[in-house]
Parts: sequence; C-alpha cells; structure tokens
Amino acid sequence: MQSSHSVISCVGALRRYMQQKGLAAFVVLTADPHGSEYLPAHYETRARLTGFDGSAGTAVVTPSAAALWTDSRYFLQAARQLADTPFTLQREGVEGVPTVAEWLAGELSALPTPAGSGAKAVGIVAETCSRSAFLALQAALPAHVRLVALDDDPFRDIWPERPPLPAAEVYVQPAEWTSRTFAQKRDAALGALRAAGQPEALVVDDLSEIAWLTGLRGGDVDYNPVFMAYLLLAREGATLFSNGHRFTPEALAQLAADGIGLQPYAAVFDALEAWAPGRLALTETANMRLVEAARRVGHTAFAASPVPALRAVKDEAEQAGFRRAVREDGAAMVGLLRRLDEVALREAWTEQTVDEVLTALRAARPGFRSLSFATIAGYGPHGAIVHYEATPATASRLEARGLLLLDSGAHYASGTTDLTRTVALGPVSDEERRVCTLVMKGHVALARMRFPEGTVGLQLDTAARAAMWSEGYDFGHGTGHGVGSVLPVHEGPLQIRKDVRPCTLLPVGPGQIVTDEPGVYVEGRFGVRIENMLLCRRDGTTPFGCFLRFETLTLCPYDLRTFDLGRFTPGEIAWIDDYHALCRRELMPLLSDEADRRWLEAATRPVSEVSASCAK
Amino acid sequence: MQSSHSVISCVGALRRYMQQKGLAAFVVLTADPHGSEYLPAHYETRARLTGFDGSAGTAVVTPSAAALWTDSRYFLQAARQLADTPFTLQREGVEGVPTVAEWLAGELSALPTPAGSGAKAVGIVAETCSRSAFLALQAALPAHVRLVALDDDPFRDIWPERPPLPAAEVYVQPAEWTSRTFAQKRDAALGALRAAGQPEALVVDDLSEIAWLTGLRGGDVDYNPVFMAYLLLAREGATLFSNGHRFTPEALAQLAADGIGLQPYAAVFDALEAWAPGRLALTETANMRLVEAARRVGHTAFAASPVPALRAVKDEAEQAGFRRAVREDGAAMVGLLRRLDEVALREAWTEQTVDEVLTALRAARPGFRSLSFATIAGYGPHGAIVHYEATPATASRLEARGLLLLDSGAHYASGTTDLTRTVALGPVSDEERRVCTLVMKGHVALARMRFPEGTVGLQLDTAARAAMWSEGYDFGHGTGHGVGSVLPVHEGPLQIRKDVRPCTLLPVGPGQIVTDEPGVYVEGRFGVRIENMLLCRRDGTTPFGCFLRFETLTLCPYDLRTFDLGRFTPGEIAWIDDYHALCRRELMPLLSDEADRRWLEAATRPVSEVSASCAK
Repeated sequence: MQSSHSVISCVGALRRYMQQKGLAAFVVLTADPHGSEYLPAHYETRARLTGFDGSAGTAVVTPSAAALWTDSRYFLQAARQLADTPFTLQREGVEGVPTVAEWLAGELSALPTPAGSGAKAVGIVAETCSRSAFLALQAALPAHVRLVALDDDPFRDIWPERPPLPAAEVYVQPAEWTSRTFAQKRDAALGALRAAGQPEALVVDDLSEIAWLTGLRGGDVDYNPVFMAYLLLAREGATLFSNGHRFTPEALAQLAADGIGLQPYAAVFDALEAWAPGRLALTETANMRLVEAARRVGHTAFAASPVPALRAVKDEAEQAGFRRAVREDGAAMVGLLRRLDEVALREAWTEQTVDEVLTALRAARPGFRSLSFATIAGYGPHGAIVHYEATPATASRLEARGLLLLDSGAHYASGTTDLTRTVALGPVSDEERRVCTLVMKGHVALARMRFPEGTVGLQLDTAARAAMWSEGYDFGHGTGHGVGSVLPVHEGPLQIRKDVRPCTLLPVGPGQIVTDEPGVYVEGRFGVRIENMLLCRRDGTTPFGCFLRFETLTLCPYDLRTFDLGRFTPGEIAWIDDYHALCRRELMPLLSDEADRRWLEAATRPVSEVSASCAK
Repeated sequence: MQSSHSVISCVGALRRYMQQKGLAAFVVLTADPHGSEYLPAHYETRARLTGFDGSAGTAVVTPSAAALWTDSRYFLQAARQLADTPFTLQREGVEGVPTVAEWLAGELSALPTPAGSGAKAVGIVAETCSRSAFLALQAALPAHVRLVALDDDPFRDIWPERPPLPAAEVYVQPAEWTSRTFAQKRDAALGALRAAGQPEALVVDDLSEIAWLTGLRGGDVDYNPVFMAYLLLAREGATLFSNGHRFTPEALAQLAADGIGLQPYAAVFDALEAWAPGRLALTETANMRLVEAARRVGHTAFAASPVPALRAVKDEAEQAGFRRAVREDGAAMVGLLRRLDEVALREAWTEQTVDEVLTALRAARPGFRSLSFATIAGYGPHGAIVHYEATPATASRLEARGLLLLDSGAHYASGTTDLTRTVALGPVSDEERRVCTLVMKGHVALARMRFPEGTVGLQLDTAARAAMWSEGYDFGHGTGHGVGSVLPVHEGPLQIRKDVRPCTLLPVGPGQIVTDEPGVYVEGRFGVRIENMLLCRRDGTTPFGCFLRFETLTLCPYDLRTFDLGRFTPGEIAWIDDYHALCRRELMPLLSDEADRRWLEAATRPVSEVSASCAK
C-alpha cells in the first residue's frame, strides 16, 4: 500500500500530464489489456494512484477533485486506505451516490470550456479499457464531455518503480490431457465465425482462450495458468504475439508444428494492416488500443468469441484429466480433514494454518502446479463472508465448536479442482445443523438431476434451492460455474444461478463440467457451502426425449456430523452412501499414512452405521 | 363443412375479385379483428373458402394455384376436407414444405409483371390481419412482391350466406366479485403507458381486456364471455365502440356512470381523427384496418398493452369469487366422479356421456354461466391426445379398466375454473400407476413450493418435472397458465413452462392465479394429467428475503387408486391428506345427495387408511 504522501505526489504528476495534454479529467480503471480476472502487478495503476488496493475500483481525477468508486465488499478498506489522500470514496450502489459519468458531468460543468473544440476531453488509457467499457461510459457522459482513448500511458513516466510486464515460462500442456489439436480447435472456431456471418480471422485477446487454443500454459498472473499474448487466429498465417524469450523449446516446437508464427507482444497493433479491410474481426470486448489500431487500417467488425462455447465441452482426454486431478486433490483433502479432527486444536491452528497445511499437502501430490484460487478457510462468523481470505491480522484461532467453511482448489498437470466442505470442529447448534442439512439436500438434488437435452442453468438452479427455500433460506451467489481444464477455475459461458441472464439461459450439455455449490450465510454467526464438480453426460433416449445426468467428479467425504441425518430421504441416503463408497474406493489406494487411511474408513461409513452409533 | 363444389365456386369468385383489383394473390388468415382465441362465425372466412374447418390454417389463392397451411394436429382432417378442392395441403413444420412467403415467391415469379408498379400485389383483409402478422409476412416476401392490406372485404360479396356479426347480450359483471373501479383500472393502465414513454390514450382491441376494463361481459364467442368492441382508453373521453342495442340497462347505466361514451362498433376508425397526432397509441397487435386509419390521421405510436400485467393480479373480491366458484365446481365434480364409480359402466357411458352429465351437473349449480372450454374426456388412448374432444363418431365407450383423463371448467358469476383429474375405471397397469404417481409428485411439488419474490415461471417449472424426468418421462405443453376472472380461461402474460420465452421469464407474484397441470402422454395407450388452480400469496419475510407460496384453490379429490402410495414421501402424504380434509370440509355442505356425501367421505379418507385397506 502506498503512503498518502506518495499518493498525493502521483496525483500531482497525473494532473501535470493532463494539463500538457489538454485533458479536463482522467479515468483509471482496474483492468489489464485482456479483461483478466487477476491483474499482473504492471497493471495495478489504480492501486498505485489511489493507495486503495482492493480488487475492484475506478479512480477519476480532475484538476481540482479526485474520487474512487468501489463496491460494498471494500467500503471499510477503501475508507481506511483513502484517508489523507485527495480521493473521496464513492460507495457504488448506495442511494444518492453519483455514477462516474454523473460525477464527471457535475465536476466538469464548473470548468471553463476549452477554446476550439466545444467539448471537454476526458482521458483514459486505451490499452486497459475494453470497447464495451468505453462505449458504456461514453454513452453515459453528457454531450459537452468527450471520452478520449489514449495510446499513450501516463503511468510509464509517473510510476518509475512500475513492475515490468510479467514473463513467466510458457510451456506445453501435456498432449495426454487434451485430445483436440490446434487445427481442430481453430477450424471449429472459424467455422462458428463463418456461421455467424463474421470474417474468418479473429484477434483473440482473452488469455485463457489463447492458452486453450494453443495448448500452452504460463504463469503471468496468480492462480490462472495463462501468459500475456494476443493470438491472430486464421486458417493461414495464425500468429501468436507474446514476448518469446520465455517459451520452452517444446512450446516453440509445438507452435512451429501447428503453423503458428511468433512475434513480440507489442507487434500485434502493426500486424493488423497486413489484412485486407473487412477480412478480420476483433472481439466485442477488445481493448481500445486494439480497436483504434484496427479502425485505422479499415477493420470495423466485432464478433463474440466462439471459443468459450467450444471450450466448455471437455473432450475425453480432458475428462480423464479431471478424474485424475480430483483423486490427487481428494487425497490431500483427506490429509487435511484428518488433521482438523486430530491435531488442529492441540496445535492451536488458525484459519491460516488450515490454508498453509492444505497447500503443503496439495503441493506434495504428483502433478500439482498451483492453487486455482486463494483458499477460503472461514471459521464461525468468517464463514458468512463469501470471499473471505484469512490474513495474519484477521485469522481466527479454531476452537472445539461450530463450523469451518473450506473452499479451495488446485491446478494439476491433468486438470483443475474446486471443492468446498463445511466441517464441524465440535458441537454444532440446531440452526447450524438445520442449515447444513438444507444445503446438503440442495447439493444432492442437483447432483441427482436427470433432465432432457436443452435444459438451461436457470431451470437446474431450482433443484439446489427448493429445500432451503421451503424454510426461508436462500443465497445470493451462483449455484454453479464452468471449470477450466488447467485454465481459470471460473469458466464461461454457462452458469447455474437464480437470476435471468444470458449465461443462465444456456443449455447444460454433455461434456460440460459445472460446480454444484449451494450455500447459506448467516451474517455474524456462520456460513455453510458444499461444493463438488459435476460432469454432464448423456443418459439414454426415451420416447420422451434425450436425457442427461451428472457424474460427480470431486472425491472428498462430507462431514456427516453436521447433518440431521433423519431428515434425509432414503434416496438421498443411498446417494450419500454410494458417493462415500466411491471416495473410499478411489482415494484409499493413494493414501500411505495409516492415520489417513483409518480416518477415510471411518468418514465413509454408511449413514445407517453413523446413525446407529449416534443413537447409542 | 362446405361441399367441394361450393369451395370451387368460392375460389372462382375470389379470383374474379382479384382480377378486378389487380391482385396477383390473396391471403386468408384465421383471425377476427381482435386476435381472439375463438372466432365468431362471421370471421370463419378461411373455413368457408377452403372447406377445412380446423381451428388453425392459412389459405393462399393465385390465379392458377391455391394452397392451405395447417399444423400437425390437423394433417389428417385437412387432407380429407381438401380432397376434390383446388387447395393443396401444406404441412407446416414438415421438412421441405415451403412457408407461405416461399410458396408465394415461387408462384408469383411465373406470373407476368404488372405494368406501372414493378411489384406484384398480394391482398389480405386489413381488419383480420394483425400488424405483427402483416409485418412478419411482408418481411419474408421478396422485393418484387408487395403485401396490400385492404379495407375492403371480398367475402362480403362472395359469401352471401355469411353469418352476421354476433350480438349477444352485454351485461354487468357483479360488483361483488371485483373491487377495482373502471377509474382505478384506467389510471393504472394509463400510468403504465406514461412510465413506458407512450401517449396516455390507447385503442384497446383485445376483447378480454375490454371486458376486464369496463367490468362488462358478453357472449359473442364460444367459452369466452366477451363482446365485439374497441375501447378508446383515455383519462377524458373514454369511448366504447360496440353495437349498442344488446346492452342491458344496467350495462348502459354503468358505462354512463364511469364516463365511458358508447358508439357503434365500426365508428372506431373515424373516431381516431378527433385526437391530435401523436397523442394516441395503438397496440402492437392492432389489426391493419385500425393501423391504416390511425396512420392517415398522423398516429404512429404502438404500445404493448399494459392491461395483461395489471389484470393478472387478482384483487380480494376476485380471489373470493374464485373461492366460491371452485366450491360449486367441486360439488359438480363430486357428482360426476361418484357416477363414474357407480353407474357409468352399468349405463354404458361413452366419453360424450361424461361430458354431457358433467355439463348438466355444472349447469345445475348456482351462478353457472357456461363452460370455460370444451370438456376433454379422453378414455385410454384418447387420453394421450392433448386437445381431444369427443364427437359422436370418435367417442369411446367406457370399460372397467384403465384411465379416464377429464379436463374441464366453467364460468360462474363469481369466477372461472379449470381442473383435470385422471381416474381409474378399474384395474390399472403398472406403467399407468407409475406415470400417475410421477405426475402427482410433480403436481404436489409445485403446489408446495415456497420461493423468493422474483422467481419466474421457468424456475418453478422444474419442480413439476423433476420426478418424471428422473424416470425418463416429460411432456410438451406448459405446466401452468393464468386464469381469467370470468374471462378467457387461458390468461397471460405469465406461463410456467420449460421453454425459454418472454412469458416464462416473468416473476410469479402475489395475487396471480396459475394452473398446476403436469401430465404424461403415452401415445396409443393412455394419458395422465392432474390440474388445480393455485393462488400465489405472500408468506413472510426472512433475513434472506420476501417469500411467496401457493394456496390451492381447486376443490376435488384425487383418485388414490391410480397411485403407488408407497412411493410418496411423508411430506407428500401429509399434503394430500390436508387437501382431502379441505375438500371434505368445503364441499360436504354443498352436497344434498346422500350417495354423493358417502362417496366424498370415502374419497377423502387419509392415505394411511386407504393403504391399510389395500394391504388387507
């Protein structure tokens, strides 16, 4: 975090730059050139400018005022970090708080109108502003304000200690875990573009799409095994724009074999002129530097990328890879859950210990590469904070009561995992037990769904919520998202959730992997979430249509001590027993520690045995 | 049905008319000026022209060819009725069959181009062609073909025996069963138009909307208690256009008290010029005669009618009216179901007898006005035909085995009913029992749903299908529709069904009445459907939101002999027992026949007693 002095001096430098360029205001978004979920440090310009380092925010500076917008997750943190800086905090979504456009309209109306052009200019860095964000802001601004996307980046000069572009190694995703060649993926993507009436050449800018298309992986950002690049996808002359000195020899050989040229990252802008006007499209969310470069040489087509829909369907090799990854991950989880039962209290673990021990157990598994997101270990009231991440300052010490919510996952060479278990550290209250039981009923109901082809996420969502709704509980996040194959753990385009959106009106089809993660969060007391990954499969044709069902991929016992077992139906109990038998069968061969083996044996006993021992 | 000779002569007359008017083709739709579900006989021009009298079809005539399009429900009937006529049958939805526009493009390309205008003219009667249908057909036609909406109606001359416009009595819906005044409904509708940025005056053309707004009812078409009219809805100068000699004195007095002027039906077209251009809107589905008349005097605004969304929320008086109607209807149903058990086989009933006896029982109930749709009494294989209506030629004789599907309803003075029961006439097969049980599970699951405000029909639909999906069954129709309050039994805008459509993405809200009617149809063998009407109600607020639930309105015992009672959960059995206790409590006081009372007593025993007696 920046000192307030350093923030004040950075704002001063930006204001001098604005004056030189004739800009009445400057907008700094939280974004990289690729719309990535996690930013490389090089692009943390908003944090550098304001001193606020939350993951979401927009800063705006005028000659006399400065403001920062962020959402409710960060109100407390931003207020603290913005103290003694020139920035006023604008709490997004709170009544009476102006939008960026409204605030700009008000601030700029007080400034003198520039000579010549009638409009006041608002600058924004073109490379880190998507076309969709640019058009939305431009449309919201009044007529006397003009938004200007600058090829120039003022932070190059006013942030001397700026970290360089990341340059982690780029390597080949093993062919064993993917059965589609680059040519097959390319042809499918270009065919979809043709079917949509678009040019059959596309500048792909999403890093995870580029990784999927090329079969390469990198480490340029946290958690997502991607690398900074653009890919000009075309039947002839496909070109990867990425700085090349960090490619492994195997990666270079694979690019050559696939006929993909390699040029420096920044060469993409000039490369567009090699294409005849109208023969090339950008994506609808391309950054404005790309958009302006394309416009200058006559390219004005924008296409929805066809990649997410193709990538969502996992091929046989990818499915096999996921099955291997969940076994390794399950073995690590058994080690952690056993220690939670047997040593955590004695050793005075905190939430951070849980994260550290689990990460170490995962790192010891064959094929482990990295976590797929920051582990969420939320004990008691922390379990109710949906995106909680323990820090030394906040981490609770575990005690012999209540619930620990543990949401975590990893990338292995063969596939990616994402699972959540809510475990009892001792006695649980009646309400905790009721909520755990209702969440589990929804989780099992979705996992057991059989449904006709064409059923969409919005329809399936009801299965996961009906039980908790019947007792007045609900949750605000999605019930399920796609999972990348050694790619970002949150993968589109499909979602299972309760709101009507384009992503919830897409059919769930064979080969797609989605999470099943209902939860309930009782603020200030506890949180419950239970999550597995599901693989959608064909389940035969009847006179009434083609039916689909889910195969549960994740392998990790549930904590039966958290449930009111008497409230489960015979069908639910049979499902739990079958699942636990599967966990035992699949995980036992991977466990060498006798204590882990004993724990798994006990944790996967049939429900009837547990009920009987409780009754004693 | 017309003779083929009469069809040939009618087509000849139409061709002479076309020649006089310079028309290269003529399109005859199946429609009245108001987009009604059931047509007055006066508008059965397509049936008169072609001899095909099914409820759906489009006829097209050129100087040398003639064709009729209809859907799969009518392929057999149309082929029979079009034999020996000039019409070729075009089977809609069958691969390779051209659309009307494609067929016209082909036929007309062979005709010589007319002098003067370069385009060939295709005529259509403006008054019976909605703007939406006109725009869709026009857009599909090639550039050299021009669609012309004619104010003139050739059938006035070429159909001498044409029935006149209907003129049934128009009367007041009792104020006891509706608590909103005309002024309240008008202001709500005009307020919604203003909020949508539309002019605050609207020509309402939907007959059921006019009946709801004015609080009047009529009998101009089968089953729907509406009357032919237009309503110019405005804060000042609201005017009803309807032929006036059939209004009761009370109806005339109510119109006067509400400040609604009354003018002849056909005066609407000239009345539009009294409004300043731009101060008046038509509906998006207004007929083309209205559209052209409005255009000539400068009105070009089209608004979605705000009435369906307002009307869907039933007020307290309407809800009380429905509760009275379902009691009367339940008493009639008990009489019918008892006779089915005790006398139908002895008296050699057919499906038509069921219809006749049930109609007579309903007609004897206080407040009965008419059926709300044609009774569907489908025995055995006929139960699998979703819109089956028994005729003397088709009616099966009932036998002492299998299932009878009985879907029926009525308008009473206080409200409208729609219910379906599937009953056993003797032993049922294992598959019949399995299907009845699965349909009942879905029916009960939807009735028991509790859900947060904002939940839409598409989400609720899953509750009604999950059980049958799990065993590979499904059905193609909707699960639920709105029900009018002494208005058409199928009422928009909301539907509960499994396809993504605007009507399934609308929230189900408090005061709305929807049906709950899952089914399964095993072609050639049997059909099962179980249907009640549900009233959506508030069910309290929890920390997780405002929740809603359903109150089941319909009162009629289920046939427990059709179910595998052992497959119901304790919760399902408790719901059935509670419902049967309610039926007994509400219906017994209305029954005077001792046999009916005994039957109801037995039919509403707790499930546990029935299971016990089965086990003996």
